[in-house]
Amino acid sequence: MNNCIIAQSGGPTVAINASLAGVLSANMENGYFDTVYGSINGITGILNSKILNLSKLQETIPGFTDKLKVTPAMYLGSCRYKLPKHQDEPEIFDKIFTFFHEHDINAFFYIGGNDSMDTVLKLSEYASEIGSNIKIIGIPKTIDNDLCGTDHTPGFGSAAKYIASSILEIAHDTYIYPVKSVTIVEIMGRDAGWLTAASALARNEYSGAPQLIYLPERAFDENVFIEDVKKLLETNNSVVMAVSEGIRDKDGNYISASATSTDNFGHNQLSGAGKALESLVANRIGVKVRSVEVNILQRCASHLASLTDLDESAEQGKYALQLSMEGKSGVMVTLKRTGDAPYSTQTDYQDIHDTANLVKNVPDNWINKEGNDVTKEMLTYLRPLIAGEPVISFKDGVPEYLDVRHLKS
Amino acid sequence: MNNCIIAQSGGPTVAINASLAGVLSANMENGYFDTVYGSINGITGILNSKILNLSKLQETIPGFTDKLKVTPAMYLGSCRYKLPKHQDEPEIFDKIFTFFHEHDINAFFYIGGNDSMDTVLKLSEYASEIGSNIKIIGIPKTIDNDLCGTDHTPGFGSAAKYIASSILEIAHDTYIYPVKSVTIVEIMGRDAGWLTAASALARNEYSGAPQLIYLPERAFDENVFIEDVKKLLETNNSVVMAVSEGIRDKDGNYISASATSTDNFGHNQLSGAGKALESLVANRIGVKVRSVEVNILQRCASHLASLTDLDESAEQGKYALQLSMEGKSGVMVTLKRTGDAPYSTQTDYQDIHDTANLVKNVPDNWINKEGNDVTKEMLTYLRPLIAGEPVISFKDGVPEYLDVRHLKS
Repeated sequence: MNNCIIAQSGGPTVAINASLAGVLSANMENGYFDTVYGSINGITGILNSKILNLSKLQETIPGFTDKLKVTPAMYLGSCRYKLPKHQDEPEIFDKIFTFFHEHDINAFFYIGGNDSMDTVLKLSEYASEIGSNIKIIGIPKTIDNDLCGTDHTPGFGSAAKYIASSILEIAHDTYIYPVKSVTIVEIMGRDAGWLTAASALARNEYSGAPQLIYLPERAFDENVFIEDVKKLLETNNSVVMAVSEGIRDKDGNYISASATSTDNFGHNQLSGAGKALESLVANRIGVKVRSVEVNILQRCASHLASLTDLDESAEQGKYALQLSMEGKSGVMVTLKRTGDAPYSTQTDYQDIHDTANLVKNVPDNWINKEGNDVTKEMLTYLRPLIAGEPVISFKDGVPEYLDVRHLKS
Repeated sequence: MNNCIIAQSGGPTVAINASLAGVLSANMENGYFDTVYGSINGITGILNSKILNLSKLQETIPGFTDKLKVTPAMYLGSCRYKLPKHQDEPEIFDKIFTFFHEHDINAFFYIGGNDSMDTVLKLSEYASEIGSNIKIIGIPKTIDNDLCGTDHTPGFGSAAKYIASSILEIAHDTYIYPVKSVTIVEIMGRDAGWLTAASALARNEYSGAPQLIYLPERAFDENVFIEDVKKLLETNNSVVMAVSEGIRDKDGNYISASATSTDNFGHNQLSGAGKALESLVANRIGVKVRSVEVNILQRCASHLASLTDLDESAEQGKYALQLSMEGKSGVMVTLKRTGDAPYSTQTDYQDIHDTANLVKNVPDNWINKEGNDVTKEMLTYLRPLIAGEPVISFKDGVPEYLDVRHLKS
């Protein structure tokens, strides 16, 4: 028997199931593996014997991979478990490889972000040490776009599309009253500002929102910020800005509310950068101001996915399968950009040591001199990633996704 | 000449432009009015001479009404201006009717919520007093669904669809980790819980989220609430609840954070019901908990509009035109439900005195005995309103809406 097993891990994106669908579709085409198993809740499914037979689901559920491709979050569930070093806890690795052996597993695919790539690194090194031929392959995933070695990551394009579309709609909302107003949109991104940068894609011939963009890669100065806003208010009724949740001052302190807030149950609260800037603007400028925290909706809104993102994610899943057939191990699938106009990419791979535990930040020269916008290079880079809309089925007015009751207690 | 003028007012919905499109389409069909004008920023456009020739735009911009129908927010801008009594400030009314006369205006259509209907009432009473034949007609609008005399309001169905779809996607997100968690989704609705009730439409065969729904029409009890949550956590890993921003205790106090919170700029902050309950759950139960504030996205997300809502909104705009042709004045267009299965409606109208300044709350017997869910009757009422998806054009990955630069300073 020649089987493989897949797992997903880390935070969700709308494209991580597309990567899974890519592996499944590719295997259905070439029939390389007899059975594709899925491990529930990341690598912990293997440790706890919580496994699915994905091949069987693919055979018995009509349109399974098509629906999987557009289903949000993670069909196999997730974990935030980082493997220890095998020298420290060899029994865990022994348990994993015993499982592989017992189930004729010849390849393990891990779809996830940095921590998942660390798992790929550790498992592949262990496999080398014990002389195992099992292929350990990583498939990238993150809305933050901060994985090194790949042009951009699965999940990022859809989150970017959601941000850009939502900001355009918010902009329409801000234009309706003939009064000065400031709108602050706080976007996910503690360390890397890629997603916040994508807000620039909301601009079109009639709408310049957001006029200001603040990323964590540049030190935030509240005085300069207030001047930025005041200047725009001279010639604009509506000022819209996009702000990373992770903006910080020159000393590295996050711009957020202090821990001194309490509520009517007497408990401390911590607010984000958006709320902090909202107060600052209200006090220093006195203009009507509100903040919008995009929150988890930006990572699970499958109804507004980028078809480019989903297709590329599936493509990378498919390529992972091919890599295992070619005998590669200890590698991560990557995407190389081969052209901007027209946009074109090519799947590739790199040694896992070149990816795991590194962070790709926005290059400083893709942020403008003033630190409140992004450059043309950034827009050229971003634009193709949000193109195209998948067909989503609706039933009784709500999207029709894959049944995930197997994840519930 | 036989002209008319339209204005929009109050808070935006994704359907208020569909109502406007309905009037324009109907007039293009029957050619009753020579010119349809638009007043910018509600009734204040008439007072400040900020007017658009909508008929000309309809003739010169290809696909104008189709694109208008799906464009979010308000094409004519808005105002939050409530007319004074004409006995108090007769010069304002005189100015308005002089404008009507000078422009051969024979009908004024006001699309909006309660305050707008109050304007319709005042203008129509003044018209009667001075013996004017100008028809003053209201077209309803609100995401809150709290206008009396109509089965449901334009804008509500789309906001409900957005809530239901988003909660389903959030639910998928909550299922991924094998740990107990509570997710609180705070939804707009200070006084009426219709929109929060619509969260129930997110439930399907595999997902029961939200398992708890709290509306402002029932007194909120924190102890009962904690018991509700604890009970569900016994048999569910993920507990998702929908909460109106306007929930209050039995003494009428809003459940929200106190005004004692400050941020690192030293300013007071006020948090919502969602954040307050998040603290309560964290303290009393100690489970992983987060709150999501849907915020303005629920009222401007045209990419997820309900086609039923848009069609009905356009239908009501069209009927308003017909009413003016029939010589009616001082009335509001309404919608009567003529069937649940299959769902059917009929446009109607009612005297403006029966609507203005009244609020339609959720009937008490549509909330369950325990005060934490809605009944079957509510679901039967809600379900048809979110059906159908309009075709939205995308350009470079973002929705293509009508140019609204005429609203900007």
